[in-house]
Amino acid sequence: MPTLRIALAQVNPVVGDLSGNAALIRERTAAAARSGAHLVVFPEMVLTGYPVEDLTFRDAFVTSSQRALAKLAADLDAGGFGELAVVVGYLDADGPARLGDDTTVRRGPRNAQAVLHRGGVAATYFKHHLPNYGVFDEDRYFVPGDTLTVVRLGIGDEQVDVALTICEDIWQPGGPFAVAAAARVGLVLNINGSPYERDKDDARLSLVARRAAEAHATVAYVNMVGGQDELTFDGDSMIVAPSGELLARAQQFTEALLIHDVTLPVAVADAPTGGLGEMAVRRVEVPTAWQTPAGAPQVGGVAERLSDLAEVWGALVLGLRDYVEKNRFKSVVLGLSGGIDSAVVAAIAVDALGGQRVVGVSMPSEFSSGHSRDDAADLAKRSGLDFRTEPIATMVDAFLANMNLAGLAIENLQARVRGVILMALSNQEGHLVLTTGNKSELAVGYSTLYGDSVGGFNPLKDVPKSLVWELARWRNDDAAARDQVPPIPENSIAKPPSAELRPGQLDTDSLPDYAVLDDILLGYVEGDRGRDDLIAAGHDPALVDRVMRMVDLAEYKRRQSAPGTKISFKAFGRDRRLPITNRWRETAA
Amino acid sequence: MPTLRIALAQVNPVVGDLSGNAALIRERTAAAARSGAHLVVFPEMVLTGYPVEDLTFRDAFVTSSQRALAKLAADLDAGGFGELAVVVGYLDADGPARLGDDTTVRRGPRNAQAVLHRGGVAATYFKHHLPNYGVFDEDRYFVPGDTLTVVRLGIGDEQVDVALTICEDIWQPGGPFAVAAAARVGLVLNINGSPYERDKDDARLSLVARRAAEAHATVAYVNMVGGQDELTFDGDSMIVAPSGELLARAQQFTEALLIHDVTLPVAVADAPTGGLGEMAVRRVEVPTAWQTPAGAPQVGGVAERLSDLAEVWGALVLGLRDYVEKNRFKSVVLGLSGGIDSAVVAAIAVDALGGQRVVGVSMPSEFSSGHSRDDAADLAKRSGLDFRTEPIATMVDAFLANMNLAGLAIENLQARVRGVILMALSNQEGHLVLTTGNKSELAVGYSTLYGDSVGGFNPLKDVPKSLVWELARWRNDDAAARDQVPPIPENSIAKPPSAELRPGQLDTDSLPDYAVLDDILLGYVEGDRGRDDLIAAGHDPALVDRVMRMVDLAEYKRRQSAPGTKISFKAFGRDRRLPITNRWRETAA
Repeated sequence: MPTLRIALAQVNPVVGDLSGNAALIRERTAAAARSGAHLVVFPEMVLTGYPVEDLTFRDAFVTSSQRALAKLAADLDAGGFGELAVVVGYLDADGPARLGDDTTVRRGPRNAQAVLHRGGVAATYFKHHLPNYGVFDEDRYFVPGDTLTVVRLGIGDEQVDVALTICEDIWQPGGPFAVAAAARVGLVLNINGSPYERDKDDARLSLVARRAAEAHATVAYVNMVGGQDELTFDGDSMIVAPSGELLARAQQFTEALLIHDVTLPVAVADAPTGGLGEMAVRRVEVPTAWQTPAGAPQVGGVAERLSDLAEVWGALVLGLRDYVEKNRFKSVVLGLSGGIDSAVVAAIAVDALGGQRVVGVSMPSEFSSGHSRDDAADLAKRSGLDFRTEPIATMVDAFLANMNLAGLAIENLQARVRGVILMALSNQEGHLVLTTGNKSELAVGYSTLYGDSVGGFNPLKDVPKSLVWELARWRNDDAAARDQVPPIPENSIAKPPSAELRPGQLDTDSLPDYAVLDDILLGYVEGDRGRDDLIAAGHDPALVDRVMRMVDLAEYKRRQSAPGTKISFKAFGRDRRLPITNRWRETAA
Repeated sequence: MPTLRIALAQVNPVVGDLSGNAALIRERTAAAARSGAHLVVFPEMVLTGYPVEDLTFRDAFVTSSQRALAKLAADLDAGGFGELAVVVGYLDADGPARLGDDTTVRRGPRNAQAVLHRGGVAATYFKHHLPNYGVFDEDRYFVPGDTLTVVRLGIGDEQVDVALTICEDIWQPGGPFAVAAAARVGLVLNINGSPYERDKDDARLSLVARRAAEAHATVAYVNMVGGQDELTFDGDSMIVAPSGELLARAQQFTEALLIHDVTLPVAVADAPTGGLGEMAVRRVEVPTAWQTPAGAPQVGGVAERLSDLAEVWGALVLGLRDYVEKNRFKSVVLGLSGGIDSAVVAAIAVDALGGQRVVGVSMPSEFSSGHSRDDAADLAKRSGLDFRTEPIATMVDAFLANMNLAGLAIENLQARVRGVILMALSNQEGHLVLTTGNKSELAVGYSTLYGDSVGGFNPLKDVPKSLVWELARWRNDDAAARDQVPPIPENSIAKPPSAELRPGQLDTDSLPDYAVLDDILLGYVEGDRGRDDLIAAGHDPALVDRVMRMVDLAEYKRRQSAPGTKISFKAFGRDRRLPITNRWRETAA
């Protein structure tokens, strides 16, 4: 049986940066070629970055992608890599990007995959299963493909049949994998833009193993890595044998070139063709000249798995770093209250960017305790960040002297004055403002609109308070185990949480204990569990009602970009779904 | 041929208010019955309100809708209306609301329509064509129906065949209307939640006429009215004959009960059944006892059309009024700069709520011109709103004394101090803060994040600056024509726009002339036109590049709710797509 040396290129593209992404592909192909690889596989839509959202609707962007693909094929050949089969994801179209008035014309954009060989595009495949749930909106953007492409790689006795699939194609039963089995292929490629989700990791391996068994074929799964706005792609690329055995697996949250020799069955002479089940099959010969490599087989290795908390920390650090770098910010600024949330955000920021690119501002009020200032200063010292102090009393007093305010209005005023200070520093010095509210607070509306919610990125937006504490302890323990200084002051972890907006205030004055709150929130928000179900799980009915109401009412607060009456359907915000991090410009340079 | 007296109930439901919406249906049915109607038709999802967004995923909400439907049918019968056929839209499901791990189970939510008769549900229909573009996400929420329901109304010689369809079913060729033609029905009902869109009005009538001709049937089109968050449903219900003749049409932007007698062909004895083209046909007998009414026929009348500007004004006033009322705010507050945008918002608010529910605050700075204060006071006097003055100098100086700020940072500081003042008034007195930035400013990022962008609702969010001026002139002329005081000071309309954040500042220092800017924005944003296309239309290439870049970069600013790294796919904001205006609560009262 022939042995194919496969290189899985787990890379970090940037949305819209077609020339940068093409350069990345050329560079990794060269590295794979130096290691003797025959086939190099890149992630879903690696050439455009992913997800491109409403850029799909711009004809000029589709054309840019198509042209960049043709140029990449030619450049690879010119660089001496024409004999390798290089598999890349890109954006294609065989109809207009968007429907006009004539709805009989079919919309054309395709989530596409190409095999590049000898300076040209030897084969293409269009994604069949389009995800349209959670963070995915692909029914808005793409037309599903209805043909499975099977590429016959090699010449003479060394030919193997390889099926091309994309991401969701592996998550849904039926479709490409079932057809690949019927087509009797030896290898299925599955290229991904599959975002990190807590606890998804094990589901991914067992899924790939199940599909490999169903298809009686080896599966090569390659995923991108890196942050793209709110999504973090974790990599975790792998090769799994038809037996379900894990042959090779890359580390998460880092770029990798996973090179591994796989022994594959020779392509069968009488392989079935035409329509097989729900899809047609298109067979393409790609006569790459290769010989089974001499010497010891190349082994990609199986990377050690990260612990749950290490995974989350890795996602948060990479997500922040790429948001800052890809949007070309030089530095970040955040308020340091001495509490746990801002301490953890500061530690994430320092891990992502280094202390010299992080500005921490203590903004004490008359209600701030002594330990708040001390703990903030202690954190700054441990992290090496740029520490400043801006007391807010004079500014707050200027408002109070001119307006007749009481109670909650005064509490919120303090948070808003802090927001104005951070934004002024951002305007004056160019920092990105980091917000530090955790998911539990945001869920129940325990934050001040235009106050502590001010900022351009929030590392804890999706981290419940209980997990914030766990992460703080894990980070400190991990530092201690490496003989480094634990970055987070023990006092910030241990003290009872308080907003310190009035004397003696504690979070527990307004909120249930965070362990109970988070359990209800997890059920209600993430689990879509109803009231009866939560009560059956042992929660107090009155508390369930209270938390559900807080969550429902807080939805409003999170819509900080004011809604308004539509008179056209192309306003901004939700209508125009564009990546924040995007390097493509249709305009002249 | 039998004559059927149809009542189209153009009503204003509230999302989630199942008992309130049911009461509305009972009340309008009673009114229709008093006029001798045989058939009463309500809009799409009238029982739940529309759109319900992610409430679809809550099993308890689906159950609430199903139970409310059964109770409504029983209540109508108990009220003496059992012999009428009452057609209502609601949320149904024949599978789980959301897929779990077992993706072989089909998701079940349906955008449904029921015919209520004699205390029960006599027939149902599930929407076939699901819109998944622009403001619609129905592929996320619903499973499409594949069976057309044809109801045979009446007994003896007076039987007519009526096909049930929902909204998008009329917008796409093929499907229900084609099948209704093959089924030889006499009447097609099309129930809608069709939002107002500028210039859509004429498209709607010509579409209904085209489908009536294609189906060889009379079409009764009923649409809801009212604001629901950003959408405004304008009504415009109508009845069109197979010839394309418009028989009756309701006024826009107001509730209406359009009652009209239509003469319909007797149901054919050998009407085809079973599968007809792309859908199956389900035939249901609904033996409503009716006789062709004696006396003069009931004529619904054709309402006079509004002018383009009157339509837009109507949408903006209704959108604001319903946002305030449905969210149970007592009053609104806005900053009055003396400029055109805040003057127009104030006039809209006074038209929507009355002057006594509108608070206007002049917040002059050292850079504010004398005419700014005078024009704001003049506006207040004309409108009868609650006028106050809060000079910002002391607050701004308190920041400047403590921080080292210059240039843009000082300009933005002033806008943010104003935002803090408005939010403090909101906290202290309970007003909803109105934002006043127009669509042109928002598009190019000419506004201050957390400054003039502060607020819970923005009537001008989708109104370009050129249209703001047109609306101001139209509103003043309309008042003059009615011998009323024109609400907007002529000086606010005539003077060159300025943010007044530094001495002598004019919008034209930073932006092109608004007429040119709006023309490019209209092409780029609303028309999805590319750079080459805009230049071919006669615009200066450098200006096109500049405006396109401003729009692309300003996308970030509009995302005021900070993004953050996802570690689960159920965070908040965009992930959890819930109506802001929603009365449904799963919790105990």
